[in-house]
Amino acid sequence: MATLQDIGVSALINLFGAFLFLIAFAVLRIQPINDRVYFPKWYLSGDRNSPRRSDGTFVGKFVNLNFKTYFTFLNWMPQAMKMSESEIIRHAGLDSAVFLRIYTLGLKIFAPAMVLALAVLVPVNVSSGTLFFLKKELVVSNIDKLSISNVQPKSSKFFFHIGVEYLFTLWTCFMLYLEYNNVASMRLQYLATQRRRAEQFTVVVRNVPSMPGHTIPDTVDQFFKTNHPEHYLCHQAVYNANTYAKLVKQREKLQRWFDYYVLKHQRNPHKKPTCRTGFLGLWGKKVDSIEYYQQQIKEFDHSMSLERQKVLKDSKLMLPVAFVSFDSRWGAAVCAQTQQSKNPTLWLTSSAPEPRDIYWQNLAIPFISLTIRKLVIGVSVFALVFFYMIPIAFVQSLANLEGLEQVAPFLRPVMRLDFIKSFLQGFLPGLALKIFLWILPTVLLIMSKIEGYIALSTLERRAAAKYYYFMLVNVFLGSIIAGTAFQQLDSFLHQSPSQIPRTIGVSIPMKATFFITYIMVDGWAGIAGEILRLKPLVIFHLKNMFLVKTERDRERAMDPGFVDFKETLPSLQLYFLLGIVYAVVTPILLPFILIFFAFAYLVYRHQIINVYNQQYESCGAFWPHVHGRIIASLLISQLLLMGLLASKEAADSTPLLIILPILTLSFHKYCKHRFEPAFRKYPLEEAMAKDKLEKETEPELNMKADLADAYLHPIFHSFEEEEDEEQQLEEVADVRVDKHETWSASPVTELGTPSHHHQVYNSSSPSSHYASAYEQSSSQYEYHYEAHRHEEHEYRYN
Amino acid sequence: MATLQDIGVSALINLFGAFLFLIAFAVLRIQPINDRVYFPKWYLSGDRNSPRRSDGTFVGKFVNLNFKTYFTFLNWMPQAMKMSESEIIRHAGLDSAVFLRIYTLGLKIFAPAMVLALAVLVPVNVSSGTLFFLKKELVVSNIDKLSISNVQPKSSKFFFHIGVEYLFTLWTCFMLYLEYNNVASMRLQYLATQRRRAEQFTVVVRNVPSMPGHTIPDTVDQFFKTNHPEHYLCHQAVYNANTYAKLVKQREKLQRWFDYYVLKHQRNPHKKPTCRTGFLGLWGKKVDSIEYYQQQIKEFDHSMSLERQKVLKDSKLMLPVAFVSFDSRWGAAVCAQTQQSKNPTLWLTSSAPEPRDIYWQNLAIPFISLTIRKLVIGVSVFALVFFYMIPIAFVQSLANLEGLEQVAPFLRPVMRLDFIKSFLQGFLPGLALKIFLWILPTVLLIMSKIEGYIALSTLERRAAAKYYYFMLVNVFLGSIIAGTAFQQLDSFLHQSPSQIPRTIGVSIPMKATFFITYIMVDGWAGIAGEILRLKPLVIFHLKNMFLVKTERDRERAMDPGFVDFKETLPSLQLYFLLGIVYAVVTPILLPFILIFFAFAYLVYRHQIINVYNQQYESCGAFWPHVHGRIIASLLISQLLLMGLLASKEAADSTPLLIILPILTLSFHKYCKHRFEPAFRKYPLEEAMAKDKLEKETEPELNMKADLADAYLHPIFHSFEEEEDEEQQLEEVADVRVDKHETWSASPVTELGTPSHHHQVYNSSSPSSHYASAYEQSSSQYEYHYEAHRHEEHEYRYN
Repeated sequence: MATLQDIGVSALINLFGAFLFLIAFAVLRIQPINDRVYFPKWYLSGDRNSPRRSDGTFVGKFVNLNFKTYFTFLNWMPQAMKMSESEIIRHAGLDSAVFLRIYTLGLKIFAPAMVLALAVLVPVNVSSGTLFFLKKELVVSNIDKLSISNVQPKSSKFFFHIGVEYLFTLWTCFMLYLEYNNVASMRLQYLATQRRRAEQFTVVVRNVPSMPGHTIPDTVDQFFKTNHPEHYLCHQAVYNANTYAKLVKQREKLQRWFDYYVLKHQRNPHKKPTCRTGFLGLWGKKVDSIEYYQQQIKEFDHSMSLERQKVLKDSKLMLPVAFVSFDSRWGAAVCAQTQQSKNPTLWLTSSAPEPRDIYWQNLAIPFISLTIRKLVIGVSVFALVFFYMIPIAFVQSLANLEGLEQVAPFLRPVMRLDFIKSFLQGFLPGLALKIFLWILPTVLLIMSKIEGYIALSTLERRAAAKYYYFMLVNVFLGSIIAGTAFQQLDSFLHQSPSQIPRTIGVSIPMKATFFITYIMVDGWAGIAGEILRLKPLVIFHLKNMFLVKTERDRERAMDPGFVDFKETLPSLQLYFLLGIVYAVVTPILLPFILIFFAFAYLVYRHQIINVYNQQYESCGAFWPHVHGRIIASLLISQLLLMGLLASKEAADSTPLLIILPILTLSFHKYCKHRFEPAFRKYPLEEAMAKDKLEKETEPELNMKADLADAYLHPIFHSFEEEEDEEQQLEEVADVRVDKHETWSASPVTELGTPSHHHQVYNSSSPSSHYASAYEQSSSQYEYHYEAHRHEEHEYRYN
Repeated sequence: MATLQDIGVSALINLFGAFLFLIAFAVLRIQPINDRVYFPKWYLSGDRNSPRRSDGTFVGKFVNLNFKTYFTFLNWMPQAMKMSESEIIRHAGLDSAVFLRIYTLGLKIFAPAMVLALAVLVPVNVSSGTLFFLKKELVVSNIDKLSISNVQPKSSKFFFHIGVEYLFTLWTCFMLYLEYNNVASMRLQYLATQRRRAEQFTVVVRNVPSMPGHTIPDTVDQFFKTNHPEHYLCHQAVYNANTYAKLVKQREKLQRWFDYYVLKHQRNPHKKPTCRTGFLGLWGKKVDSIEYYQQQIKEFDHSMSLERQKVLKDSKLMLPVAFVSFDSRWGAAVCAQTQQSKNPTLWLTSSAPEPRDIYWQNLAIPFISLTIRKLVIGVSVFALVFFYMIPIAFVQSLANLEGLEQVAPFLRPVMRLDFIKSFLQGFLPGLALKIFLWILPTVLLIMSKIEGYIALSTLERRAAAKYYYFMLVNVFLGSIIAGTAFQQLDSFLHQSPSQIPRTIGVSIPMKATFFITYIMVDGWAGIAGEILRLKPLVIFHLKNMFLVKTERDRERAMDPGFVDFKETLPSLQLYFLLGIVYAVVTPILLPFILIFFAFAYLVYRHQIINVYNQQYESCGAFWPHVHGRIIASLLISQLLLMGLLASKEAADSTPLLIILPILTLSFHKYCKHRFEPAFRKYPLEEAMAKDKLEKETEPELNMKADLADAYLHPIFHSFEEEEDEEQQLEEVADVRVDKHETWSASPVTELGTPSHHHQVYNSSSPSSHYASAYEQSSSQYEYHYEAHRHEEHEYRYN
């Protein structure tokens, strides 16, 4: 059992670590050389083109010489708070703004709860202790004396706890209601003020049936002309670009070799690099490498353009999927929300995600396969969630000092040192968990991909859900049950199942210290690490040293990153769970949670303003999940409190507590009806209003040209740009008329400064509006392509 | 423990009872005087106007004198089988045809299952008995020797049972798939071939927001003109007719007095009846009763017409509900399936039920109240389901002979008589249950009404669902657990909870005899009673004797009734559950189930062809529930088999059995995706095809006039007819132009013989197409009104 002293040591370590990180951050961020690591968002939005510098000297270009700024090292905090919410929405999108609201929701829920719990429950708990008057040291050294475990069984003082649980539930529900209302209206307002975008007019249609004698585009055209005659405009077929993607990969390989030889030549300009053309370069004719690869790439480009034409023209390579566009938002909303065919597995329509949000690989999965995939992944997730528990339980029981001594008795002398002991008990369990959790999100994302969702945002949300279940079972329940199982395994095996709820109930207050250290290690230190951006910092400087030649390359080397919802949301939800469960049981945990929320809010506000650049905009589509999981946490806390009180023989209170889950569930149901449709369906009233407004302001709009290839696979776009320059394929490009003025696919520019945006990507015109989509799925290729052009240029000059 | 002999006695009693009923039916049905009781459907469909008679004598008008027909008393069975399914659909609607398919599904599932189980499992079970070679009498007298309980623990013979369970599950799922597919396509085909009907073009809109300064019709008009400009046609407001309904009730009272005095006068034509006008007729002026009431009714009619005008004109009496009509099926389908407003609790649209299917009282319930109502009813249903169990368990344990002897020891000598003993054991438990279940459906229907559903069909489905939960817990689980609890209560209290599944597992085969008697009492005898129609027979002849004066009155006295889905569906589903659970455990139960399904199929086929006249047509909307509950039964059977095998210490088999529920659930999920949308949404493809066809055949259609008051509250229609005759209110009637030719709201006539229909209701013209809706909600009133007119006529002649 960890003492208050252990927690104190752990808190000190973590506070010291966090402080170190903050100092490091404060120093690093004001160095001009790091400007692109700590403020990339400003470069992307076009507000900044070169680092701020303190003076004009050469050294001042890299190091901050204005020593005054070193003394105001925490001034990023007030700076982060300056920007208003509406400015954040304009600057970073709605997703980021709604994400920040989760933290303020945490503060709003837990701050009053903490005041109430500390003012009412802690005195009640402390005054109940039978040990209180015996030995002061003993009382103070054990955190349990502040928790509900200190109250004697059958005490009528438990009614304080029940009362606080009622108040807390009501307060939480009230806050949740306000917040859901807020977010839903923010979402609708955001959608209403958005500029015209392809996805507003487009519906993705899956499982197009194959008609004998008709190509897929013909079938689609005919179907929508018949069934949506008034609003159907055009559609975009989806091609099976697997062969083409292979060619792209091979070309990248050639490009890498070319780059390698160009670099080699630059370092040693007197010797022309050569290579052999045979297998693995071991035999064959010796040739000039640079010329050879240049030639190869040229030939490859030719065959790629042929393959590309083939893909675009061969009807057999078309997938039974189409992006169908309408001449109005109303028409698209109607098509997305209705059932088209009498066979409900054909012609499945749904609102199209924005082009950069689409996960192209999953578009072609047929309906029957989806059912099987979901079944298989469901079973796998279950197995992963429940059998992953075994190693965690093992490591945690090792991290328990008594367990460790038994397993490795030779370590006993070391572990008897007070400091080491405190360190181990305070630090190890959290760390072990953290390592386990590190590789998991990637695995879960892959699982979600297999399930067949077609939008990246949905994929992330599904992965987040899986991660949450995992954390719920393994971090929360696993720590409560398995952690104490080492002590109680014996009794577990020999008692009847009705005893188990009691055992869990008894375990909850015992694990409070573990979760406090977890909050400090995972929460505090994690957030401090978050702001330091150590990994991007190192990578940026490495790239800067070895790869960057021009200012544009420097821009490419800059990695703004994005808020990784699939990891942050589940952890946040876990903190909510901890706070809600322990609010009544061990209120002393609440200050730790509150500090986490406040600190994380500051840090993420800073990061969102200065660093992150989101991949896509889902308009806060994750909020229903956040809401639902907080409700689930409330239910869990109510059930666990019931179990705990039962173990305290306060069974009279059960009827009082049974009402709470029923009320909470009805509240959830009400909210689901009241707010969730705003996140699932686009109301016709809104669609019609926007359509009308637009018709009045821009009556002479050529929609068809605008929509023609908004939903072309990004791999074709990247190639298209190249060809535009070489002017080989005019027939595809001719539809893109003055797209720059009317369309924008990037969230950064749509509300604010499109001109800046073009300035940043100016070399990739005329398709700069595809830049983000294209960057995301073929950035490597593009990078090489860009590099290739620059180096070719230089090479010709040599 | 009931013996085979008990079951034999019970079977004999029930068979004898059923045989008596059948004989009675065979004799009664061929009497011309009963023709309207046993063949009302033919009168309603217009194919028969007067009873068939064997000869022209006076006696032959009432009694069948053709004695040959008495010897072919079972010939209704082949007659019932003659009609093809498509003819049944035309004759009685899709609901009835789909209802019959449930019975054939039962036959298809259980016939092969029975063959397999009797051929494989019974020999396995019997050969395992350790008692088999000891005493033949003992073996034969106990039905358990044929069941799984006869297999020794740890026997490898359990793999036979697991194998059969696999085969049975696969077979059931296969049959369910075929049937769902069939029913779904039948439904779509039925919808496609339907004639034009108001509900195809209409959407019911609930929670219309109140705009200050606008009336509700204005708001609705404006909203739909804005948001569905291309297809919106008109709408019909809904009035709060509570005051008016009170007046209608008072008028009925006056009418009853009038009728009473007219009858009195007819019996004694020489004395004019008189009454006093004061309180309760005790004092006041003495007046001629007939004239007095005639005058009163006339005055009342005048004030009612004033009130009616007030209701129709006062905007404050309008409810925030409207029936919105579109000019095409496409427009209506789109509006019903999409979200209208950005506040998802306003402007709730859904496909309108057909006019006679609407439950008018629930139209005005606001959204927030719905949530609360659902919560309250949910809790009440839970309480009802779980606390109703106590009296049932008590009665059942009384019905157990040993229990009865303990409670009433003075009965012991009587109960020792073998025949009485067998009778009690075979008959009582089923009877006790039956009485308990008798009052329940009405209670559950009232609960569903409180929940706020707006269609009678939905109300019936919801009540059926509640009834099913009730039967599942109380009849099925209650009988298994509580029935044996009398013997095992002691051990229950002293064992750990993990023992309970085993106890249930052990109890299942023990209760086979109870369920066999239940099937015979509730199933066989119930169905035989069903065909005899004793209650309608008696009521018809009573009415015939005392009330009927004209041929039209005789028609009114005829009560065809309808298949009461809210009672029959849950019982059917219980039989499926019993069959599925016992298929592997006690296969000897299957023949009883099969006989039930075959017999019930024949009887209901006969009844649907000759008797029943459905209230409304839901186009088989109940099938997804039937499917879902059979799936649930499969899951229950799999879990119980797992428990049973665990109690047999065949725990090795658990992994084999765990796969089954997972597969069953995925199958259910697949079916839900594949078929359920056909029952929930009207596909746009279909809507568009029907619209086009209609436009080609009838290009000059005045839709607006047709739709104008299709959805007027029936209470206004009934009054309207009266006024039409008196030609007092022309301004409401003027919209109804040649409605007869283009519209039909009755399911009987729409596909076949509209002219016959008009023939039947010809006296209630010009609104004969409302007859059914009107009959349903104000039949009493109408009856009196009609009677009034006839009697008035006669009175004037006197």
